[in-house]
Amino acid sequence: MIDVYTWATPNGHKVHIMLEECGLEYKVHPINIGAGDQFGEDFLKISPNNKIPAIVDPDGPDGKPISLFESGAILLYLAGKTGKFLPEDVRGKYEALQWLMFQMGGVGPMLGQAHHFRIYAPEKIEYAVNRYTNEARRLYGVIDTQLSKHAYLAGDEYTIADIATFPWLRSWQNQGVDLDDYPDLKRWFNEIAERPAVKRGVEVLASARKALQDDKAREVLFGATQYKRH
Amino acid sequence: MIDVYTWATPNGHKVHIMLEECGLEYKVHPINIGAGDQFGEDFLKISPNNKIPAIVDPDGPDGKPISLFESGAILLYLAGKTGKFLPEDVRGKYEALQWLMFQMGGVGPMLGQAHHFRIYAPEKIEYAVNRYTNEARRLYGVIDTQLSKHAYLAGDEYTIADIATFPWLRSWQNQGVDLDDYPDLKRWFNEIAERPAVKRGVEVLASARKALQDDKAREVLFGATQYKRH
Repeated sequence: MIDVYTWATPNGHKVHIMLEECGLEYKVHPINIGAGDQFGEDFLKISPNNKIPAIVDPDGPDGKPISLFESGAILLYLAGKTGKFLPEDVRGKYEALQWLMFQMGGVGPMLGQAHHFRIYAPEKIEYAVNRYTNEARRLYGVIDTQLSKHAYLAGDEYTIADIATFPWLRSWQNQGVDLDDYPDLKRWFNEIAERPAVKRGVEVLASARKALQDDKAREVLFGATQYKRH
Repeated sequence: MIDVYTWATPNGHKVHIMLEECGLEYKVHPINIGAGDQFGEDFLKISPNNKIPAIVDPDGPDGKPISLFESGAILLYLAGKTGKFLPEDVRGKYEALQWLMFQMGGVGPMLGQAHHFRIYAPEKIEYAVNRYTNEARRLYGVIDTQLSKHAYLAGDEYTIADIATFPWLRSWQNQGVDLDDYPDLKRWFNEIAERPAVKRGVEVLASARKALQDDKAREVLFGATQYKRH
């Protein structure tokens, strides 16, 4: 039974979906980032960057518990543990790794900034809204081009690169993007959305998600910028 | 002889340093991002996200050439090829992977935004400058705390997590950060800066780096946001 410290956000969804796809048993520990749970001392011990998701697997690689943070590392760990969703042949593995890194370094952070300036920021700053909306559309274009040549991001197989990317594109409306402009991306998106494990994964903590909408949550999320050394 | 398509930026430096640390032979192909080289059709074939760095290794995993983009994937590939700078034991490997992902998903993108709004953006937007300066300081704090407990980011060993992170912290002055506020980070930074391979790596294409300063380069970098499907 893997302990999952998480919330109903795209980075949380990646791990929920992977656990469901792998058929692993897990226990959800909600870390309400709207209420500031991510700043608690206990959580910090397993997630030194104060971010969800994090996991503790009592059945680690050497039989002892292992804790991990960063969604990309957790996906790689679960792929390694189960032998699933990361090709075994070396070429296929690096093909998937580069698209996973593309999600980690580009899709996630930049769409996150688009959400911030389009939805959450207390003032509308046109320059920043344009910057991140343009970048969102560029990233969707890169993905669409890749999916015009391959069934999935890393080729013929559904991999952790798809599992990492899909949750971020569910909020396309908040990113100023129209899915109809990206027909191959849309075909891939709709196919993944229909997978039973994906449907279960995105439902985890979904009812709690609305916390982000209230002002107090906004203040906790975007006001608490000072990091205390500990 | 590995072909490296790169420029003198933090993401380029990661790969230059890794190649030097591993003692691999490589040929540098400058992709002048200030002049728009990254939008060329030939480059796009190996780097579908239009970003440096990318590599082509004629001696790939199955004896055939392999091309790779995304600095984090390239570091993992070179670590796998040489058996260096990524621990072999499974626990150590995931420890390094999570800090590599922390760099890919946090340190790189967020310090990149700090550079943009503090240095390159045509207008000074206080909200965005504060947002990314605060985030830079928070990230430095996370790193400093980790390095108060361990010699290197992932523990006792120098790994690709350090190689990925160091180049981004070289521009601390552009990020509104004072290294003296982070004593353990500073100790680690100074030690890595003195490694001969690191010194050689950051010199690659260094003289060409000034291109970013002129207005034409700025326009190419920050004006060319429309992605053409191809």
